[in-house]
Formats: sequence, structure tokens, C-alpha cells
Amino acid sequence: MRFTVDSRLHYRFAGPCEVLLLLEAARGPDQTVLSEQLSFSPHADVARLDDAVTGERRVVFSAAGDVDIRYRAEVAVEPRDSSLVGAEASPLRDLPDEALRYLRPSRYCPSDRFEAFVQRQFGDLSGGDKVAAILDWIDGHLDYRAGVSDGSTTALETFVDRAGVCRDYAHLAITLCRAADIPARAVSAYAWRLQPPDMHAVAEVYVGGAWRLVDATRLAPIEGLVRVATGLDAADIAFMSIFGRADLLNQSFAIGQVDV
Amino acid sequence: MRFTVDSRLHYRFAGPCEVLLLLEAARGPDQTVLSEQLSFSPHADVARLDDAVTGERRVVFSAAGDVDIRYRAEVAVEPRDSSLVGAEASPLRDLPDEALRYLRPSRYCPSDRFEAFVQRQFGDLSGGDKVAAILDWIDGHLDYRAGVSDGSTTALETFVDRAGVCRDYAHLAITLCRAADIPARAVSAYAWRLQPPDMHAVAEVYVGGAWRLVDATRLAPIEGLVRVATGLDAADIAFMSIFGRADLLNQSFAIGQVDV
Amino acid sequence: MRFTVDSRLHYRFAGPCEVLLLLEAARGPDQTVLSEQLSFSPHADVARLDDAVTGERRVVFSAAGDVDIRYRAEVAVEPRDSSLVGAEASPLRDLPDEALRYLRPSRYCPSDRFEAFVQRQFGDLSGGDKVAAILDWIDGHLDYRAGVSDGSTTALETFVDRAGVCRDYAHLAITLCRAADIPARAVSAYAWRLQPPDMHAVAEVYVGGAWRLVDATRLAPIEGLVRVATGLDAADIAFMSIFGRADLLNQSFAIGQVDV
Amino acid sequence: MRFTVDSRLHYRFAGPCEVLLLLEAARGPDQTVLSEQLSFSPHADVARLDDAVTGERRVVFSAAGDVDIRYRAEVAVEPRDSSLVGAEASPLRDLPDEALRYLRPSRYCPSDRFEAFVQRQFGDLSGGDKVAAILDWIDGHLDYRAGVSDGSTTALETFVDRAGVCRDYAHLAITLCRAADIPARAVSAYAWRLQPPDMHAVAEVYVGGAWRLVDATRLAPIEGLVRVATGLDAADIAFMSIFGRADLLNQSFAIGQVDV
Repeated sequence: MRFTVDSRLHYRFAGPCEVLLLLEAARGPDQTVLSEQLSFSPHADVARLDDAVTGERRVVFSAAGDVDIRYRAEVAVEPRDSSLVGAEASPLRDLPDEALRYLRPSRYCPSDRFEAFVQRQFGDLSGGDKVAAILDWIDGHLDYRAGVSDGSTTALETFVDRAGVCRDYAHLAITLCRAADIPARAVSAYAWRLQPPDMHAVAEVYVGGAWRLVDATRLAPIEGLVRVATGLDAADIAFMSIFGRADLLNQSFAIGQVDV
Repeated sequence: MRFTVDSRLHYRFAGPCEVLLLLEAARGPDQTVLSEQLSFSPHADVARLDDAVTGERRVVFSAAGDVDIRYRAEVAVEPRDSSLVGAEASPLRDLPDEALRYLRPSRYCPSDRFEAFVQRQFGDLSGGDKVAAILDWIDGHLDYRAGVSDGSTTALETFVDRAGVCRDYAHLAITLCRAADIPARAVSAYAWRLQPPDMHAVAEVYVGGAWRLVDATRLAPIEGLVRVATGLDAADIAFMSIFGRADLLNQSFAIGQVDV
Repeated sequence: MRFTVDSRLHYRFAGPCEVLLLLEAARGPDQTVLSEQLSFSPHADVARLDDAVTGERRVVFSAAGDVDIRYRAEVAVEPRDSSLVGAEASPLRDLPDEALRYLRPSRYCPSDRFEAFVQRQFGDLSGGDKVAAILDWIDGHLDYRAGVSDGSTTALETFVDRAGVCRDYAHLAITLCRAADIPARAVSAYAWRLQPPDMHAVAEVYVGGAWRLVDATRLAPIEGLVRVATGLDAADIAFMSIFGRADLLNQSFAIGQVDV
Repeated sequence: MRFTVDSRLHYRFAGPCEVLLLLEAARGPDQTVLSEQLSFSPHADVARLDDAVTGERRVVFSAAGDVDIRYRAEVAVEPRDSSLVGAEASPLRDLPDEALRYLRPSRYCPSDRFEAFVQRQFGDLSGGDKVAAILDWIDGHLDYRAGVSDGSTTALETFVDRAGVCRDYAHLAITLCRAADIPARAVSAYAWRLQPPDMHAVAEVYVGGAWRLVDATRLAPIEGLVRVATGLDAADIAFMSIFGRADLLNQSFAIGQVDV
């Protein structure tokens, strides 16, 4: 499938500060950027820090005062295998190099605290079946609701609160998978058909010998995800990290399907 | 300087399980492994997962029942520049690729919570001077004391408890540096002259255009550190991660200087 | 001094629910209610649950739909001894019966976590001198700032965040005093000259053989506090506890001095 | 039923310090102390601080060096109504004065965090039926296991860890009941037939117009509980609170039935 994405960010930066932007469509085997344009008004001096392993695209720029950022792209997304049933877990030695770190607890995914729960609840299952059961459990025990969580909410709090938004759903899915020794990581994405339109947070698990995208919120189809950033959790995939202070004036994220 | 290290681990594994071992001396520009031997009794089938970027050496093995592991090596450590005074902070765009992730909060280093404190306490300083002031503050406000913390203790708890061991000191130093936008990471090391002998945890900060080792506990000389693992925090640098259950029967870590 | 207080609360209750109201001026040796009027529109059936020990006044009512509550009173406040210097700590056996519970940790005041800090920082002092030093420390290390904390923030978080509002200042003062074995409790009050006008939260400590009001924020004079509720922390002194759901439509708290 | 209890505590106190002891059988409508003896070796000067409302018996003494404390008593326990099924919840205005505070969150029972969970899981039930369902849920989702928790563990952590000891079971039961607007408090007790013998922690809930003892661990019969202290949570009911430092040398708690 082919998509156009269109992001507009309007921020007011207090004093000159550096900003890391993770807003561009990633490049990888499952998606191709056909055309794109990233523009700053006023003009900004930009340095690229792209990541070869995940295909994540990063730019750093210096900002002061009012800045408009716009990113437009056309992206082709290949069919993705997100099937879980029967997908086997890999022994540690067969994991790809980069997968090891996604077994470990992180800032918002304290998986070390959930081993007993995961063993009790999902102990009979393994691999993709276990992931599927974890996603079903989350679907059955959480309410999607804004205002319960904020930028410092961890999966432990979400597990107690039984409510949250996409970030929280992704964190809890990642946490429970890691507690079950299944590599799991966070992915930000433009999400076709997500209502209301916004940058989306989903999870990616390594089972059946491949990374598979899963959306614990079940709010957007996997085949319509244009992936952007990849990391341990929300600490890694924020679309903008401001090393200084700024006010959000306005922002929007749009995605549309292109008929081919 | 030249050192011999000698580790012995004796564990009892309940049922067959996979184990990740981060016990071997790292290879890098600042240290050369002259000779080494890693042995398992009974014999274990080992797979290597070494990390090219940090020089970290990793093996995975499968274990069941009683297992003796021994690692002996002779390592040459080059003189290290660990000077902080006057070392400048780097702008984001000049950081090496791998440094970016060490600016972010992690499981045991919730640096996002300490921005106000760091700004209040160390706001007038920057770069290596700021790191030096952070280390002085830790030295003046914490007591080195066992029993206060355990494997789940975060830097936030250590900041409140005002006491801990090397792991906690390293976590707090890393946390405060990251809160000051200085890349900081955790390093495990054999530590010459550390009393009692044990695997040590220290921090490494990126200032003055280079990674510099710092020991917030001030218990062992920097030039006598034989580095092993490198990561975000204790979640990454544990010398043994057991994917299953095991009992520790006995373990020891020795290091001695070799006259050349 | 003599004051008039005037509170207006306008809430919309979803479905019939019970509400506990701690809004009326307390009656006690240090303040006399000269006249007062509590009214509900529409009329509500009210039950009184006043507390004889603290003088706290409580009403319970059942509500549904839009409800206007108004409380007006004229209150004479006697001169209060809030001097701390030289006020001695009491041995446990000389404490009044009700003081014992105010030595213990509570929901928002986890004093058990601060014993090491308090010993390190204030260990040379005792009694009122210690309380005064604690208040000075808070004044020097915290910023009064809204938006940092919310209704679930504990003193441990405030100690880390180094910022908060009156509730957080009171909680931290109470926590540090209890960690120093000084009974300390939370008091809500109408606060003359507080800007902007609002219900205020302060602390009360038992030293020199008496309870003494202290305001860690230093934003309102002690002699202008018309006390309302008394308890372990914010969990006990909220002016309204709704056993059900409600929306705040409007509320105001006013206090003025009456010339006699 | 009639019981003898026999406690022996042997502690070493570092320097003179005050100690609060909650070790004696409470006096109340449901139990009568027929005879008792509390002795200190060496002799200690003891002050009594008994609580008239709960019948809790408290002594304060000053200690230094090695101290042996022994408490022996014979206690008659009346039949207790601990039935839950059909017991109705009371409206707020009908609660006894002292019950109000047991609706609120406390140090180890952060009931404010569990409203969504309780509503989701037990929302269809009320009163004693709800309490019974909460106890069943705890029984089905927790493992009784030592070493998971310690003196600072809260019910939130126990909810995540899915394991704990009697203190943790009581805290979780209390927390979930309060989150359901049912007054609940902590009670320490000598527990007949508890294996191994120890001071026990249970909960007490107010439904059907009376306080009813419940044991979330189901390890000891309710009719064999000789109650000692009553409070918000473990912060209130510890059998010994030491205002200073001490080492435990030895302690034992015994209870036996007396044939009449």
C-alpha cells in the first residue's frame, strides 16, 4: 500500500536550543520512501544522525523563537507478516545482535517486576501464542482513556490504573513480553485510519524469527503503519526532544492512502 | 599497566536454561587482552555475541545442574584521560552515533525526574566541571553502605535514601549527568585495589570529545579498571543474566597487577 | 483578630452520591465561630459528623445534579504561639493521646524513607530548632510552582522534583518532621492575605508541649489562618470527598479581616 | 473460646531510646483479658497509653542495652460474626465516628489508585458480597511467599508482584475494600493454629453495621484470633516501634487453646 504523510509542527523555543527530531518515515525492507520533503521556517541548519540498524531517521537542529516544521512524504509499505499464532520463540543465541537489549527492562517498561504475573497468567504458552494472549489480556483489562496518564507514566502504573492511551498500551505490551523473555520494542508510526489522527505508538516483538508489529490498542490496521522511530520505549521514540524549553503552538499529523 | 583477572562462578541451575555472560575483559583502544581462557565445567556449548561498537564481549550458554565457570586473562590497560576540569560539553550534532541513547532515562536512571534539581544545584556549570561538581555532591551527601538497596533500587530511591553501594552511586551519577544533558553510561569492571574484591560498577561520561570513566564511590583508581560491559544501567551490565532459575553457590572476582 | 470567610462551591454530581464536606471553620481553644451559615441549593439533607478531639466540623450530604454550596462565617482567632526556637521535643510518654499517630508515615508523607536524610542534615538539632531548620531547608530548596504536582503527588516526589504548591510544601515539612520523631499533621485553612485566595494547606507540629501551626510556603501569616480540617495529610483534609463522580463548575474561597 | 498467649522479645538497644509496644491483648466487647503479665528484664519504667476507642493497649518504655520482654495472658474470645454474604454497606452518615478515616488511603494502602480496577472487577457487587469477592480474587491471584516483600512494600507493589506474606495480603484486601468505599483497617493478632506461629496481620471491614475480621491469607481461623492492635495499616500496628536503633536477638509468639 502507498501513503502520503504530512506533519506540521509549530513551536516557540525560549532561547537557542538544540532539538532532536524523529519525524521522518524510516527506511527499511518493509517500507520505501518514494519522495519526501522536510522544511523549516525560518531556515534551520540541520545535521543528520540516521541509524543504519533500524532505519530510523534523525535530524538535529538549533532553534530559537517561533519555528514551523513541515514534513511531507510518499511512502510505499510492503505487506507485513504480523501473524503470531504458532510463531516460535528464538533461543537467545539465535537472536539478531540488536535484539538482546529489547529483553531488558527500560524506563517505562519495568519488565523485571512482572515475571511472577506473566508466569502465573501466561506460563503455559510460548512465542507468538504468548504474545497473542498478552494482547488479548490487555484488550480485556484496560480502557482506552485520555487524562489518566502523562509523560512520566510507566507500565507498572498502567497495570494498576487499568487505563491509558496508545503509549501506555504499547508500554504494557512490551513490558509483559519482555517479562516472558520475548524481545519487544517501541515503534512510533503514522497510522492510517487512526481516529483522531495523531502520531501512534505500537510495539514490535521478535517471534518466529522476525520482528512483528503489534498494536495493543487495536485502533489502527498494521498494514497502514508508516514506521518512524524504534527504541526501548517512549524515552527513545518521542518525535521531538528539546534540549531547552519550548511551547507547543500547534501541531498536526495526517496520513492518507494513495491509490496506485 | 598490566593486570591479571580471575573470576570463578559456581551456580546451580534448576532445569536447562539459557545464560548470558558478560564476564570477559572488553577489547578496545584503551585496553588489550593479551591472553585469556574461559572454561566451563562440565563443558558447555557456547555462542558468542560480541558487540563491535563498545568492545563488550558476550557469550550465551545453556546450563543445567551445577556449573563451574572460570575466566582468567591478562590485560594491558593504556593510560586513560579521566580529567574533567575544563572538558567541554559537545553539541548534540557532534556526539558520536552511539552517544544519543545515553542522554535518555533508563530503568534505574530516571533522569527525566531530576532536571529541576540539576538546574538548581549545578546550573552555573557545564561539561566536565559540571560532572566534577556532581561527583563532589554525591561524595558529600551519600554514605557507602550495604543493605540499603537491592537489585530493584533506582537512582531516585538512592537520592532519597542517601546511601547505597557502587551500583547505586553509579546510577545516581549517570542520572544527574543525563539530567544535565551530558551523555552518561554504566560500565562494569574488575577494579584493582577495590576492597573487598568484587565486580565494580562505575560511570562513563562524554565530555571534552571523549568518553571518560568516573568512579562516584572513589573506592578504586581509574587506571586500575579492567572494563567488561557497557550499557544504560545495571539492567545492561549484569555479569550474568539467567533466563530461568538458579542458586548461587559461590563466586569470586580477583585482580592483580603484573610487573612488566 | 476577627475574620469573615465566604466559600462558594458549584458542582454537578453525576447520579446520586454521598459527599463529605470539610469546609466549616473548626471550633477550638484558638478560634471561636461567632456566627455561620451553611446552605445548599437545592436543599440537601445533611448529617453532622463533627470531631470532638480536633474540633473539625464535618457534614455529609447526598447530592445529584447541580448543587450550590455556600458557607459564610465570622470567626475570632486568638493569638497563637507559633514560636519554634527553643521549643523542646516531648518524650513519647508525655505526648497527648492523639499525637502518636502523627509520628507515623501516611499516604502522602512516607517519613519512613527520610530517616537517613534527616539524620544527616538536621541531626545536631532537636525540637523546635529542628523544625525551624527543616522549614528553612524547604524554603531554600523548593520552588513554589503550579503544574509540577497533582492530587497523587507524595512528599518523596516533591523532594525529588524540588517544586510544588502549598499541599506539597506541607507534605514535605510533615514528612521530614515525622522522620525526626516530631509529631506533625496537616491542616486546611482559610488564609488571610494569601494571593490568589484559595483554601490553604499548612502543617502543625507538636513541640514545646503544644501544637504549633507552621506554613512551609511562607505565603500567609499564621495569625490569619482560620483552621478547618486536621489530619494525617491531604487524604484527610480535602474540603470535599465525593463518593461518586462530579464535575467542578465553579468555586471560590474568600477571607477578609473584620475591624473590631 | 479461651486462649493463652505467650510472647518473648529479646532486643539489644543501642543507647537509651524510647519504645512503643503494641503486644498486649486488646480489651473489647469481643474479647476479655482474664489474666495477664507484662515483664521487663531488667526492669523498665513503663507508661500506659491505652486507646479507649479500639481497646488497643499501648505501653511506652525507655530502653538501653539488652532487654527481655515477656507478655503472658489468658484471654476469652467471644463468638464473632464474620459472615459477609448479604451484609450491606452503610451510607456514610450511618458509619460510626471512627470509621471515616478507614475509608482513606494510607501509607501502605494507596486505595486512591485502585478505583478503576475495583469498579471493573467488582462493580456489580456491594457490601459484604463485594468484600467476599475481593478476598476470593486475592486468594486466586496471589502466592503466599516470604522474601518477595519487606517492611516498605505497599499494596500497589503486592498487586504487581502477585506474592507476599500476611502483611501484604491484609494491605491488599484493605486497599481494594477502601477503593470500593468500604471502611477497612488493619489488625494485628495472636493467631491460633497459624503455622509457623507468629504475630499475624489481618483486616477488618465495616459491613452489615459492624466491624468484621477477615483473613485474606486464609491461614488461621477467625475465632482463634486474639486481637492486639488496630490501625490504618502496618505503620500503625507494628508490635514494637523503636525511636532509636536496636538489634533483634530473639523473639517468639505462642498461642494455645485452653479447655474450659
